[in-house]
Amino acid sequence: MTKNLHRQQFGITREDRESLLNQNSKLIWFTGLSGSGKSTIANALESYLHDREILTYTLDGDNIRFGLNKDLTFSAADRTENLRRIAEVAKLMIDSGVVTIASFISPLISDREMIRDIVGSENFLEVFVNTSLEECERRDVKGLYKKARAGEIDNFTGISAPYEAPLSPDIEIKTEELAVNEAVNLIYDHIKSTIVTK
Amino acid sequence: MTKNLHRQQFGITREDRESLLNQNSKLIWFTGLSGSGKSTIANALESYLHDREILTYTLDGDNIRFGLNKDLTFSAADRTENLRRIAEVAKLMIDSGVVTIASFISPLISDREMIRDIVGSENFLEVFVNTSLEECERRDVKGLYKKARAGEIDNFTGISAPYEAPLSPDIEIKTEELAVNEAVNLIYDHIKSTIVTK
Repeated sequence: MTKNLHRQQFGITREDRESLLNQNSKLIWFTGLSGSGKSTIANALESYLHDREILTYTLDGDNIRFGLNKDLTFSAADRTENLRRIAEVAKLMIDSGVVTIASFISPLISDREMIRDIVGSENFLEVFVNTSLEECERRDVKGLYKKARAGEIDNFTGISAPYEAPLSPDIEIKTEELAVNEAVNLIYDHIKSTIVTK
Repeated sequence: MTKNLHRQQFGITREDRESLLNQNSKLIWFTGLSGSGKSTIANALESYLHDREILTYTLDGDNIRFGLNKDLTFSAADRTENLRRIAEVAKLMIDSGVVTIASFISPLISDREMIRDIVGSENFLEVFVNTSLEECERRDVKGLYKKARAGEIDNFTGISAPYEAPLSPDIEIKTEELAVNEAVNLIYDHIKSTIVTK
């Protein structure tokens, strides 16, 4: 299929764009159970970075599913394809110079390894939002755990499908011990030296 | 499938990012025959904009096919799916504030209408790189026309598959009359007032 394709060399590189922006781009990947607080912390981090003139963009499952991946179901194969495409988009975003934030349950170690492979290990920061299942179910912001327990949602992570916690995440956030602003500070302390160049 | 999805509202908006960058993002879409000069002009435009501190990113068929769309063939259905995904990625890129350049043969009016619909008409600039089939075939930089004439490539645009020229492109570049730098100047004159805010 790729026999008649030729890789193009572009004049303007990622380094040129990073230099223009005074920042280094990375993919900051949030993983954790539904309701663990991924999106809340990701959004707070984005605001915090924007206030420091860092250009960011957030990819989120709830949003990308209405566009790029609206043809995909929640079958096991399609969940992996969902994450593969998101990783490929993140790779392009990183190449554009943008600090890319992604917030997805991404329950399988093998899928997160795939994402790391696609974007390159040096570009990937894994943030494990570690909130216990009991706490997520107690919060149940969207009422999904109740539906899952009632059998109205199949393959629900933590209830009827596995969540494989990261073995050695770059950053671990225990939301039952940290406030949102404390979580953001923890992440910023970790990434500041790698992304901020101004 | 989307029953249990909720659209997220993010604190940082496209307008915030555009303001940070002092630019307005658009999708500048190059369409034309293989060998018409799309990529050459797109790359020259990207350099020109970068020199003026405009953050850009180029999506290109030869490149995106190795990543996001490597699962797709060159069947009619997959060519449309290829362009649909590229448009969805462009939509995210525009939302990130980046001036997005895309260079694809995109031979069908219906596909280009789909792209316009996905990203929004107000974000879409169609650049028709109008080089005659005779001239493209004479140049034959990649030797593809020769192969297509010999029957070694199926569904080759202009030879064994149609190219539907834009009826009212935003910008038309006749490469048999303009040098590359003249083409870039023509495009920049057209887009300057909309993308540059500094």
